[in-house]
Amino acid sequence: MSVLVVGSTALDSIKTPVSENPRLLGGSASHAAVAASFFSPVSMVGVVGDDFPKKYLQLYKKHKIDLQGLQIIKGKTFHWSGEYELNMNNRRTLTTELGVFETFTPHLPQRHKDAPYVLLANIAPSLQHHVLDQVNRPKFVMADTMDLWLNIALEDLLKLLKRVDAFVLNDSEAHLLTEERNILTSLKKIHKLGPKYVIIKKGEHGSILSGPSGLFIAPAYPIKCVTDPTGAGDSFVGGLLGYLASVGGNVEKNLRRAIIHGSAVASFCCEGFGLTRTTRVTRAQINARVKELEGMVRL
Amino acid sequence: MSVLVVGSTALDSIKTPVSENPRLLGGSASHAAVAASFFSPVSMVGVVGDDFPKKYLQLYKKHKIDLQGLQIIKGKTFHWSGEYELNMNNRRTLTTELGVFETFTPHLPQRHKDAPYVLLANIAPSLQHHVLDQVNRPKFVMADTMDLWLNIALEDLLKLLKRVDAFVLNDSEAHLLTEERNILTSLKKIHKLGPKYVIIKKGEHGSILSGPSGLFIAPAYPIKCVTDPTGAGDSFVGGLLGYLASVGGNVEKNLRRAIIHGSAVASFCCEGFGLTRTTRVTRAQINARVKELEGMVRL
Repeated sequence: MSVLVVGSTALDSIKTPVSENPRLLGGSASHAAVAASFFSPVSMVGVVGDDFPKKYLQLYKKHKIDLQGLQIIKGKTFHWSGEYELNMNNRRTLTTELGVFETFTPHLPQRHKDAPYVLLANIAPSLQHHVLDQVNRPKFVMADTMDLWLNIALEDLLKLLKRVDAFVLNDSEAHLLTEERNILTSLKKIHKLGPKYVIIKKGEHGSILSGPSGLFIAPAYPIKCVTDPTGAGDSFVGGLLGYLASVGGNVEKNLRRAIIHGSAVASFCCEGFGLTRTTRVTRAQINARVKELEGMVRL
Repeated sequence: MSVLVVGSTALDSIKTPVSENPRLLGGSASHAAVAASFFSPVSMVGVVGDDFPKKYLQLYKKHKIDLQGLQIIKGKTFHWSGEYELNMNNRRTLTTELGVFETFTPHLPQRHKDAPYVLLANIAPSLQHHVLDQVNRPKFVMADTMDLWLNIALEDLLKLLKRVDAFVLNDSEAHLLTEERNILTSLKKIHKLGPKYVIIKKGEHGSILSGPSGLFIAPAYPIKCVTDPTGAGDSFVGGLLGYLASVGGNVEKNLRRAIIHGSAVASFCCEGFGLTRTTRVTRAQINARVKELEGMVRL
């Protein structure tokens, strides 16, 4: 079954102590859509300016991503630039130029309105709502977010949480949202806000799923060298939902394995700048890491 | 089969922002021996002063710990005092009074020399060597350590690593020892120093086992409230080796499940000051957490 992804479509300029990488393909929707495309047909909703490189459109198409919902309008593509410290954990934003995103309203093409799996990748909660308003009874809706929206659009986000099946956030965001350091108490509070499933991402320490059948503690795939973690969280949710859509059936039954698939794709994302590594990976390479991860949790 | 534990036997005074707990039973050997005692017969090698409270000897005996190797000599018992910050992660040592440990030389009673499982809990590497010198071809030897010995007794420790089957350390110690932030590279370097099995403890993020059959990424048992993490690492290795000794047979085959048992005991340790919670736990309660942990990693 197919996945509808909404999120940001951006150009990322990523600086590290050893290199500068200007205007890479980035944004939560780009990462999530490419990740999901390894498993399921994907359609993407977003906006780019007329400065958006054609080669990036080709890259989406190479991954068979349906671009009917991608608006290309006059103006500048959303541009983010950031700098990582040597340990690749701490990053600071240098500039954020919203460009065409400033006035973006997602319009769903008719054929996307029946998407069974909807991924509300990281973007303003008001836009996530806007997409949800246009879809017809999807089978499963998952939302991601970031600290920015917790700080400036909390009310919108809280309303969104009542409309989604699964909510994904990282550990520091969970702390920010619930004011709880303890992960169990934090999970409990987030469930009370609405979502049946909550997934807390912990970077290199993996992730925790909480749902009706209890906790699942998933490892991150350990990699030798982190080149650029930008988009790893988006790749994780994209791979996760793409896998879930590909197997269909009972979500509860497949969600754990879906998380392992998300972790595998996210590990590739970290091995190159932007999407450079992810877009060169094969399904067989992903499957190999999934198999390794399964071996790493087997008793 | 039985486990021989050597390590420190101490009185711990533990201060937190909410309470003071003077002269609790502590020390790596105390925590490890009690943890192991849930699964196997345990004998302990250590030293205490004549100020050592009788009730603590009774506590060891309640856990059927063989104390023939525990020297009780004139002088003061090793005393450590420390203070935790509110988040219970950062602690600072207030005082360390070595007392009778200053001149301690472990002497193994004859009947301990054939112990099949030997746990060299955290103590000066020279004392760990001293115990190893006295045992006859044990089946499995595991050593724990702490940053102090990496800083002041590295040479002794490096020699020890060539004599043990398994080496346990935490992530910051692995970084200190190998000067590597990446856990895979770090593990590789530690294996080269000798041990067939390396276990890196990551606190609330669980642990990683590296051995001939690859990696095992184990979760920590998530608890609602951390009262006092002192001794959790010692409880982890004690529970681990106690379980391993109880099942006997092939180490490779049982080590993963042993780690889960270690995690379960360590979680109880964190729920009370010193050994107050661990010494009140039943094997059935431990088994229940083991079962829960197994459920948390099941795909």
